[in-house]
Amino acid sequence: MNPGSHRAPLTPARSGVPEHGRVPKYYLVKARLEELLAELGPGGRLPTEAALAERYGVARATLRLALRDLLLEGRLRRQGRGTVVAGAKIEQPLSLASYTEGVTRQGLRPGRTLVALDRLAADPALAERLAIAPGEPLWHLERVLHADEERVGLESSYLPVARVPDLDRAFDPTGSLYAHLRGHGIHLAGAEERIETVLATPREALLIGTPPALPMLLLHRRSRDAAGRPLELVRSLYRGDRFSFTLDLTAGADD
Amino acid sequence: MNPGSHRAPLTPARSGVPEHGRVPKYYLVKARLEELLAELGPGGRLPTEAALAERYGVARATLRLALRDLLLEGRLRRQGRGTVVAGAKIEQPLSLASYTEGVTRQGLRPGRTLVALDRLAADPALAERLAIAPGEPLWHLERVLHADEERVGLESSYLPVARVPDLDRAFDPTGSLYAHLRGHGIHLAGAEERIETVLATPREALLIGTPPALPMLLLHRRSRDAAGRPLELVRSLYRGDRFSFTLDLTAGADD
Repeated sequence: MNPGSHRAPLTPARSGVPEHGRVPKYYLVKARLEELLAELGPGGRLPTEAALAERYGVARATLRLALRDLLLEGRLRRQGRGTVVAGAKIEQPLSLASYTEGVTRQGLRPGRTLVALDRLAADPALAERLAIAPGEPLWHLERVLHADEERVGLESSYLPVARVPDLDRAFDPTGSLYAHLRGHGIHLAGAEERIETVLATPREALLIGTPPALPMLLLHRRSRDAAGRPLELVRSLYRGDRFSFTLDLTAGADD
Repeated sequence: MNPGSHRAPLTPARSGVPEHGRVPKYYLVKARLEELLAELGPGGRLPTEAALAERYGVARATLRLALRDLLLEGRLRRQGRGTVVAGAKIEQPLSLASYTEGVTRQGLRPGRTLVALDRLAADPALAERLAIAPGEPLWHLERVLHADEERVGLESSYLPVARVPDLDRAFDPTGSLYAHLRGHGIHLAGAEERIETVLATPREALLIGTPPALPMLLLHRRSRDAAGRPLELVRSLYRGDRFSFTLDLTAGADD
């Protein structure tokens, strides 16, 4: 078969799509660097900027634009004073399981550092989402998420104090909140989630230790108990260069 | 209750977290602009850069950094020669339903433009993922995704030619591929998905009409038929400033 013949009836638009031209110079350098990354493999140390700029015959500023993209995408990582080829992104299953369980499944050691545990009065928007009266007391639990030694995210949870009155006394904030809730006979039965990409704010970047404009994956969750009552609102921010989300869909739930 | 007393046993780390200071000037301008956006509401037109720089007492360059963040996040949109407040992001359900169905549910008119329909030989990596022999013929279908008049994404699908031999003749590339497959008695029974955030390449940015470094949501899908055989590999790229993904989780599937 003539490899081109099948296209005739479709009058493809490809002719209008420039595959070359209009591609900025730094992007061509990025493509060369990607080949180098594949050769070096995860953990491989990159030559100096000066050496790379000379190798590709470009200005240092052009080389840096290419390196910046690769850093933002998580293909490269800073390590000490050098730069190394990054490993694969962490795959976090989109399930009711907690961060702890998801990261453990990847063979990594999960960790959490407390930023704040505050008690506040529900504003009308939070109250509506949690199906409680405005002004009712809420816990706001904010924690930095770790995988092995690395800070990878920031999680903010809002729960009615009435559901877990002893959170400030009986809960170890480095552990799993869901395990604590199960200990109180509260079982998650479901959750609505919404995922988007956002840029880290300066405060978030500082807490997680990333550059301020790094694209992040932001997961909003509203979880509910077996009776369908809202239990918790969560805002989980994950480093876009280190995380991906996975899920398995089956027909029946959707069709 | 003393509002601070509940924190004592936790030795919170908040004291180490600067809420102020180290925040770049453009970010303070961004916060002021966010208040302005809330006042103007979706579709509201922003004053000129000169007027805004004067209002906030900052240099044009500082103002532009703040505007750039808001544009990348989809809070602002260019319209003609001006800038307007953007509406909410499109919520695309993570389900086996097609893009067409997801966008229609949002009250938007879905559309697709053909970039290319190519026939190629499966390389070893694609062959393994599709459980076919290397060298077997594949369709590569690439289309730009539209919502109303706007280009919002780019979708690339790989399917064994043996499964849908007439794709080049009988399929309308502006329509739903899954509807076409159903017409051939092929029903999707499930899919593995992986979601990450990436930067648009120059080619992708050109096809979708976005700035090249815009953060995108990238969805990888491998779908399977009722017999569990892989049917299709899909790489769907959605504008991060215009899309979010939603899903509903229930216990049982996960716990």
